[in-house]
Amino acid sequence: MSMNNTLAEIADLVRETNPLVHCITNYVTVNDCANALLAVGASPVMADDRAEVAEITSIAQALLLNIGTLNRRTIASMKRAAKTANTNGIPVILDPVGAGASKLRTRTAQSLVRLARPALIRGNASEIAALHAGSGNTRGVDAAEADQGEDAFSRTLATAKALAVQSGAVVAVTGSTDIITDGKRVLTIRNGHPILSRITGSGCMLSCLCAAFCAADPKRILEASAAAVAAMGHCGERAAAGTGFAGTAVTGTATFRTALIDRLSRITGSELAQGVLCEESA
Amino acid sequence: MSMNNTLAEIADLVRETNPLVHCITNYVTVNDCANALLAVGASPVMADDRAEVAEITSIAQALLLNIGTLNRRTIASMKRAAKTANTNGIPVILDPVGAGASKLRTRTAQSLVRLARPALIRGNASEIAALHAGSGNTRGVDAAEADQGEDAFSRTLATAKALAVQSGAVVAVTGSTDIITDGKRVLTIRNGHPILSRITGSGCMLSCLCAAFCAADPKRILEASAAAVAAMGHCGERAAAGTGFAGTAVTGTATFRTALIDRLSRITGSELAQGVLCEESA
Amino acid sequence: MSMNNTLAEIADLVRETNPLVHCITNYVTVNDCANALLAVGASPVMADDRAEVAEITSIAQALLLNIGTLNRRTIASMKRAAKTANTNGIPVILDPVGAGASKLRTRTAQSLVRLARPALIRGNASEIAALHAGSGNTRGVDAAEADQGEDAFSRTLATAKALAVQSGAVVAVTGSTDIITDGKRVLTIRNGHPILSRITGSGCMLSCLCAAFCAADPKRILEASAAAVAAMGHCGERAAAGTGFAGTAVTGTATFRTALIDRLSRITGSELAQGVLCEESA
Repeated sequence: MSMNNTLAEIADLVRETNPLVHCITNYVTVNDCANALLAVGASPVMADDRAEVAEITSIAQALLLNIGTLNRRTIASMKRAAKTANTNGIPVILDPVGAGASKLRTRTAQSLVRLARPALIRGNASEIAALHAGSGNTRGVDAAEADQGEDAFSRTLATAKALAVQSGAVVAVTGSTDIITDGKRVLTIRNGHPILSRITGSGCMLSCLCAAFCAADPKRILEASAAAVAAMGHCGERAAAGTGFAGTAVTGTATFRTALIDRLSRITGSELAQGVLCEESA
Repeated sequence: MSMNNTLAEIADLVRETNPLVHCITNYVTVNDCANALLAVGASPVMADDRAEVAEITSIAQALLLNIGTLNRRTIASMKRAAKTANTNGIPVILDPVGAGASKLRTRTAQSLVRLARPALIRGNASEIAALHAGSGNTRGVDAAEADQGEDAFSRTLATAKALAVQSGAVVAVTGSTDIITDGKRVLTIRNGHPILSRITGSGCMLSCLCAAFCAADPKRILEASAAAVAAMGHCGERAAAGTGFAGTAVTGTATFRTALIDRLSRITGSELAQGVLCEESA
Repeated sequence: MSMNNTLAEIADLVRETNPLVHCITNYVTVNDCANALLAVGASPVMADDRAEVAEITSIAQALLLNIGTLNRRTIASMKRAAKTANTNGIPVILDPVGAGASKLRTRTAQSLVRLARPALIRGNASEIAALHAGSGNTRGVDAAEADQGEDAFSRTLATAKALAVQSGAVVAVTGSTDIITDGKRVLTIRNGHPILSRITGSGCMLSCLCAAFCAADPKRILEASAAAVAAMGHCGERAAAGTGFAGTAVTGTATFRTALIDRLSRITGSELAQGVLCEESA
């Protein structure tokens, strides 16, 4: 079966199995995350109190940890929930939002890589670099410019592979070309649209989709993550085209956000199989 | 006056009196809740610090407690605010989100039923069962399948009546058929659309609308709650029809969400009187 | 250069310089705030933990403090972040949401005026009155009626000037006519549309835009604030016209919200120069 068909199959599996994804995430984009999960056929549950996270994780099929608005209380909850996820053998997905922008973020992300044993780490190039090196170029929560552009691609690829080897996690670095690697195999995806970076939450939603897709097919984390990245990129492209960003008509970023979630709510495996621009390299 | 006209009258009363609703609620759907309240003619105020909740409740006409992302800090605030609401004689509306999914949720919801003396408890069948029995089938924050379907209707009705008698609150259980009961009288509402469960926040928004409607007509909690349930269901139907979910055209869930709040912002008593599918049984 | 051209120039400067705005804000409208900042060409970073706020502020070009859902933890973070902002000479923008509605809000807002040395305070008439007098008419987080209407305009103007002199901050009071004053100079802006008050977040988004505009032109806080107020008002007008609120067609408040952010994402200096209704008086 071709890679596109594999990714399509996983997307369909999400709608068939309706996985429950426990999210401990930031309060900025949490509503978008919940709607994105519902859109692709998963169910979200947000719960962050230390007294209940273990129980909530135990009824879920994946655990999503996003440090976008981390604080002492929720960091402790993340660690406790991860312990349950590890014990129960469900995948942990880590989104190290803003790693590199503060010591708290860098250290927390690094400690979650060790303690939470994530199946997948998904971030932009700056965050992945910060996670790997303990330092980075992170400018707030967006990718720093030094980490963008085709010039930086091979450096990012090397970092992603190294982090994957070091952590045992699949690493997904999203940018103009997305990289998904387990340290040996490398999938690149060239879907997406620049307008995705002009709304908040596109990265956070993507990490949640990765969690849903990994929940649906936990034995194929590399492919499941690639399927989620491809779905987001493809829906972003289609939404941009449909709202004028790819042509001359112009609407705006809020209409784009609506169109993006609309597209996610209608995406099917067969549409995805047609639209994915995925390559496997060594 | 027919029941439909009563419900319509209460909807108009909300726009006329512009009640202030103090919400202590979750961070997932809080923005939708605020917009839904504004849409129907109420004013939201969100405040959850223990040092101010009593004062804020004292200037409000209803208090909404939603445990969607409860934590120790906000549970204490909920209890304090409820005390003021009880003293001042304004209605408390309880949404026991996810009761049954964790001990913390079940216990907190049960303790709020006792301490906060809610005028209305609004949840799905799983949550209401968990509240009543102290155990339930809750799967995350959505209704478990065992609690859905026509087969379960009579069981849910019995539970709702029993909880109403036990708690002294009106109980509203929403599902394909909605039940509103004070333990003796029973109103059923058959408005609504399945797409409502594919966006986050439809339940939370409904509980907020119940709070606004109860604030506008605190002497008729049963009818006010039914009016809110009917308004949400009717607007959901109309939004679904307008965005293609009832026909062949397809848009998506984010467009539906927008259309739903749009509809709420335009709903009038006379439109509601035409659209409500409400019956009173014994 | 005319005032309209000055305001237009500052709007363009935001897109050219892409300032990073550190927001410590409420969880109700934070998503709208992030999207509004991205729309006008700025970058948001939300971070509220005491352990990281100083570092985050130190990489930002403005600090936005909004007390909409304040609590003990975030109040401490606001104070710490403000210290860094003051040290680094970046502007602090204060939105005293609900000042006057509780002692906690009034006192916190007043103490932030002293300790955070804001470059700009932006609120409605009730909040500004509460900040100045230590008492007010605030009804929840919306402007109390006694503070609305043309009758109250001169009273509000006097209060705004007095608060500006007392605090050393520019004061922006938004209402049917907006006032921006440094205590001596007074700019009034007559853009805007009543529908802005039927969605949550219009005030919070505006304060964030003020922060972005002040970040882009920190030597002209009065003009930068006026430019942000004018941009929001103008986009609100255009969005209302485009969604039927200014004519006979009717859509709804959620469509208006989408249209508003869309307009913000497309606003240019030259469009603004045409649309602003700004006057300078003594």
